[in-house]
Amino acid sequence: MRIVIALGGNALLQRGEKPDAQPQRDNVDRAVESLAPLAEHHEIIITHGNGPQVGVLALQSANDPKLSEPYPFDTLGAMTQGMIGYWLLQSLQNHLPGRHVASVVNQTLVLAGDPAFDNPTKFVGEVYTEEEAAKLAEERGWVMKPDGNHFRRVVGSPKPQRIVETRIIRTLVEAGAVVVCAGGGGIPVIRDERGLRKGVEAVIDKDLTAAVLAEALEADFLMILTDVPNVMENYGTPEQSAISRATPAYMRAGGFPAGSMGPKVEAACRFVELTGDTAAIGRLEDAEDIVAGDAGTIITPGGNYGGPDDIRPPMPEPVESRKVRRA
Amino acid sequence: MRIVIALGGNALLQRGEKPDAQPQRDNVDRAVESLAPLAEHHEIIITHGNGPQVGVLALQSANDPKLSEPYPFDTLGAMTQGMIGYWLLQSLQNHLPGRHVASVVNQTLVLAGDPAFDNPTKFVGEVYTEEEAAKLAEERGWVMKPDGNHFRRVVGSPKPQRIVETRIIRTLVEAGAVVVCAGGGGIPVIRDERGLRKGVEAVIDKDLTAAVLAEALEADFLMILTDVPNVMENYGTPEQSAISRATPAYMRAGGFPAGSMGPKVEAACRFVELTGDTAAIGRLEDAEDIVAGDAGTIITPGGNYGGPDDIRPPMPEPVESRKVRRA
Repeated sequence: MRIVIALGGNALLQRGEKPDAQPQRDNVDRAVESLAPLAEHHEIIITHGNGPQVGVLALQSANDPKLSEPYPFDTLGAMTQGMIGYWLLQSLQNHLPGRHVASVVNQTLVLAGDPAFDNPTKFVGEVYTEEEAAKLAEERGWVMKPDGNHFRRVVGSPKPQRIVETRIIRTLVEAGAVVVCAGGGGIPVIRDERGLRKGVEAVIDKDLTAAVLAEALEADFLMILTDVPNVMENYGTPEQSAISRATPAYMRAGGFPAGSMGPKVEAACRFVELTGDTAAIGRLEDAEDIVAGDAGTIITPGGNYGGPDDIRPPMPEPVESRKVRRA
Repeated sequence: MRIVIALGGNALLQRGEKPDAQPQRDNVDRAVESLAPLAEHHEIIITHGNGPQVGVLALQSANDPKLSEPYPFDTLGAMTQGMIGYWLLQSLQNHLPGRHVASVVNQTLVLAGDPAFDNPTKFVGEVYTEEEAAKLAEERGWVMKPDGNHFRRVVGSPKPQRIVETRIIRTLVEAGAVVVCAGGGGIPVIRDERGLRKGVEAVIDKDLTAAVLAEALEADFLMILTDVPNVMENYGTPEQSAISRATPAYMRAGGFPAGSMGPKVEAACRFVELTGDTAAIGRLEDAEDIVAGDAGTIITPGGNYGGPDDIRPPMPEPVESRKVRRA
């Protein structure tokens, strides 16, 4: 199978951990231990988040007295692609001797007219007082919004439309390489009035980008890895239960919160609906079991959700038999 | 022809310029204006320096109060590959509509036993007082040396042995892509006692890496671009004159200074001696004329140096006819 894997930025830098290089590299090694076995039987393409890392670099840049203004988010995102891309590249090479691995810089095209630019909602960078915030809004044109007792900059999170370097990634996958790409959802770019590409100050949801990438590469399986074993229904109520299999329609009816599980569910559903292939959401450590159909929340076009009261017919194309046929 | 181009880090951030993102992007655009026309008739592979850029990031990292220790040089180098790689990628795409461009993260293998590690000579990062320097040497194991009135950290500059991802680069070149790779001479890695790759605190000369890359890719032409039109002989004397063509033996006899022109001459000579192909050293703005054989210092196995007293036979394989035959 051809599998696109989306790895959470928090898997590499956990909340509360110091943002030093070595602990992040150790986390990368742990992640690769879970993923490398998949590369022995499948084509794998790995994309990763960069939220915590881009935050660290944004502060360093904002506090650098040599700079007239902080580096913009497209450039900061590119730096995290180099950094995390290198760590994953080296770790994958060490875990997969003899296998070629490529780590590439990628841009993701978004629409200049995306409504997200008119109503930016993603907090980025440092906290400021109201007065400082007003000054930055004036001087730099930043949009500032209250965040608790402070103010922070917000940028838009436009929908990813296309990975600019899709052809490059496809060439590498078809040559047998494990490919690391589109880190942080890809560097956000628009086309300007002359048709030229230009970076924009925005952040792109990495799971939605992974779905766009999986669709463009005609992947068989989109696997979104996080730190929980399943998507839960009725979360936080006495009826709370893990979803093991479901259709996009069933998942969409779940109303998962926009901040956390929402974009993952949306990305998985979008891929399944557009391609008729399979997506899954689950825990990094369970990656092999998820591909075998034994863990995670698996979303298929006609899937059943596998609960005790499930009376729907079995999946028309179970993951297990797909794996044998297409591997 | 297949042309490997080495672009100086100073071409992107000139001495005295503020290290802001926008002026560097403008410099990248200017560099690409000179290089893009070559891509219309040739396969081009671009590598770049990162000295000034890695210095900026090293200071930001050293001054980040959230970090227990600054990011190591392999990780900082990877960040500059992402950043400069993105700028070049986007600019090349905008200058070459319809052409595919790839920017990849690369490691360069050096030998763990390279004598450069025992006698580090490359100054990196901030200046310190003697007392601070002694403390850092104690706490972090850094080697500190006097630099003028201050002390600075020094790291080794081991010889590049091999670009780890050569196969990936070749695959992309053969698929017709313009490739940006091995920035900053590549991220320095060694093989440890278990055979695994591991980043090391070192800087690699980007021109020597370009020669290794050109040789591995069987390039026809290695072009080292800087800010002077030619290599000069008898530099600073009344007999000073520009060298237009020469053999490696002639160049090696010139005794060019280790700090500036030396590594460029060494890299060019090494490539010509090992492959029998052509190398050149010249000015970025002259890139097209250099490939046409009309500018720069061109080094060929049997080349003549083209001066007024040149009595050697003409080059057995002039650059002009090579271009026509192999283009």
